[in-house]
Amino acid sequence: MKLPAGIEIIEVGPRDGFQNIKTPISIATKLLIIESMINAGIGAMEITSFVHPKAIPQMADAEEIVKNILAKHKGAKLRPIALVPNLKGAQKAYNSGLREVTYVISASEQHNLANINRTREASLAELQSIIAVMPDLKVRLDAATSFGCPFEGKVEAELVLSLIQAAVEIGVREVILCDTIGVAQPQQVYALAQKVLREFSEIPIGMHLHDTRGMALANTLAAMESGITTFETSVGGLGGCPFAPGAAGNAATEDLVNMLQTMGIETNVNLSQYLQAVYLVRDHIQKDLTSHMVNACSYEGI
Amino acid sequence: MKLPAGIEIIEVGPRDGFQNIKTPISIATKLLIIESMINAGIGAMEITSFVHPKAIPQMADAEEIVKNILAKHKGAKLRPIALVPNLKGAQKAYNSGLREVTYVISASEQHNLANINRTREASLAELQSIIAVMPDLKVRLDAATSFGCPFEGKVEAELVLSLIQAAVEIGVREVILCDTIGVAQPQQVYALAQKVLREFSEIPIGMHLHDTRGMALANTLAAMESGITTFETSVGGLGGCPFAPGAAGNAATEDLVNMLQTMGIETNVNLSQYLQAVYLVRDHIQKDLTSHMVNACSYEGI
Repeated sequence: MKLPAGIEIIEVGPRDGFQNIKTPISIATKLLIIESMINAGIGAMEITSFVHPKAIPQMADAEEIVKNILAKHKGAKLRPIALVPNLKGAQKAYNSGLREVTYVISASEQHNLANINRTREASLAELQSIIAVMPDLKVRLDAATSFGCPFEGKVEAELVLSLIQAAVEIGVREVILCDTIGVAQPQQVYALAQKVLREFSEIPIGMHLHDTRGMALANTLAAMESGITTFETSVGGLGGCPFAPGAAGNAATEDLVNMLQTMGIETNVNLSQYLQAVYLVRDHIQKDLTSHMVNACSYEGI
Repeated sequence: MKLPAGIEIIEVGPRDGFQNIKTPISIATKLLIIESMINAGIGAMEITSFVHPKAIPQMADAEEIVKNILAKHKGAKLRPIALVPNLKGAQKAYNSGLREVTYVISASEQHNLANINRTREASLAELQSIIAVMPDLKVRLDAATSFGCPFEGKVEAELVLSLIQAAVEIGVREVILCDTIGVAQPQQVYALAQKVLREFSEIPIGMHLHDTRGMALANTLAAMESGITTFETSVGGLGGCPFAPGAAGNAATEDLVNMLQTMGIETNVNLSQYLQAVYLVRDHIQKDLTSHMVNACSYEGI
């Protein structure tokens, strides 16, 4: 079993998690949780999303969040990132001081149309304009539905590879393979990762896995065996599954950190400190979390 | 990634799951669920436990359960199994018509004392008397705390190997490595399985994994990669974690079947039929299940 010595976690809770919470979260609470995760050792984080406030009111404070975090962590090693849906959002992110953004395109055309109301081609054109206008902005690609689509079903590897190829040619500098609906299985993860790593060895490739069917950590293991060392995860397992309320969504950061810690794989995250952030989420935002660690750790001695 | 073509599931829900339910379950409900799982393709099952009714009143109907199942499935391929804590229980199981039983000994002395109120040595002596009295009874060993102990912490592989060695010399014909408190991690699973498979190639070796920290399927993957092809799992994920109510316990059979089905690994279990048994458990026994599939499948189109 060939495994890496260490991996990088990109925390997506404040973006992917919070955007799925209907009740408004105060900026003070958001910052408290973000700071708590940074204190625990999180080095890269999607801290917000520059979407239209009418689409997702929860993200209306994006600029304020960014300015606050940048002021506090200037010159620090932190990689603050925001999701941007289009050129306008990217410009707002840039003007607020950010130099790294995530842009989402689905491998499957039908999901891209349903999610972003654009064809894949139109999404790629918008990506091109973002990079043309702001060449010093680092743009990462979340390749959604890389393992399956709610509309098209199976997604062929060729569809994922062609999307990455186009995005890399435009100038994307990191690619995350996303299991948007939680249907990936370990062999598929291993096989797709091997193909992508072989064809795009010049840029970092990561994974964004869901625990909908309990396979998040099995898929993480398969991904690590294939050579993947970057994972997007979410505090408490928040978010990631708007179609299935109650079912688990994103892989929980603390579940990943716990597994890797017990395996001796470095994450740079202190688990007990990180759990303090999870408890803040549980106490201030959502009582019932799908995270395994938050439930297991409620019981002394286990 | 080297994986088996098929695996065997030993369903433990009617024993390990039901014994943790305080409210009495009627024998009709128990039989309905057991039959539903057999119809879905489950070929081996711990159907009850011959413990003292004062210790676990839920298992007071053990004899009736066995007689009913044996009458219905005489000559069929079904492997009906009961857990027995001692010679007396084994004799009751034998007299009710069973020819296969599970006997539990912990790898760690402190857990064996706390769980069974005996030293490991005393447990092995009792095992010897069971096999001496009933030489045609197939006895399987559940090697509890093989990956960690709530009292002793880390459990050295040597402790597990010496337990298996002693049990095999006495006449045990199958060994299951049990992650009793849900602390196993994939590398440990892989390493211990390799050692045990190498040293005891003459008997079947299986695994009993827990999902307490979300690692049940990651550990299953690691176990399969090491060559393990027998897994004990529980309907709905019932049972297995009396120290941590609310936290996940046993790996859910349906989560395992789903993962393996998507990977093209044969289990002989029909997932959609098996889910009918899970829904019976949810509707008649326990509303909130830690199973991922039962939650994911509650939402159409996912």
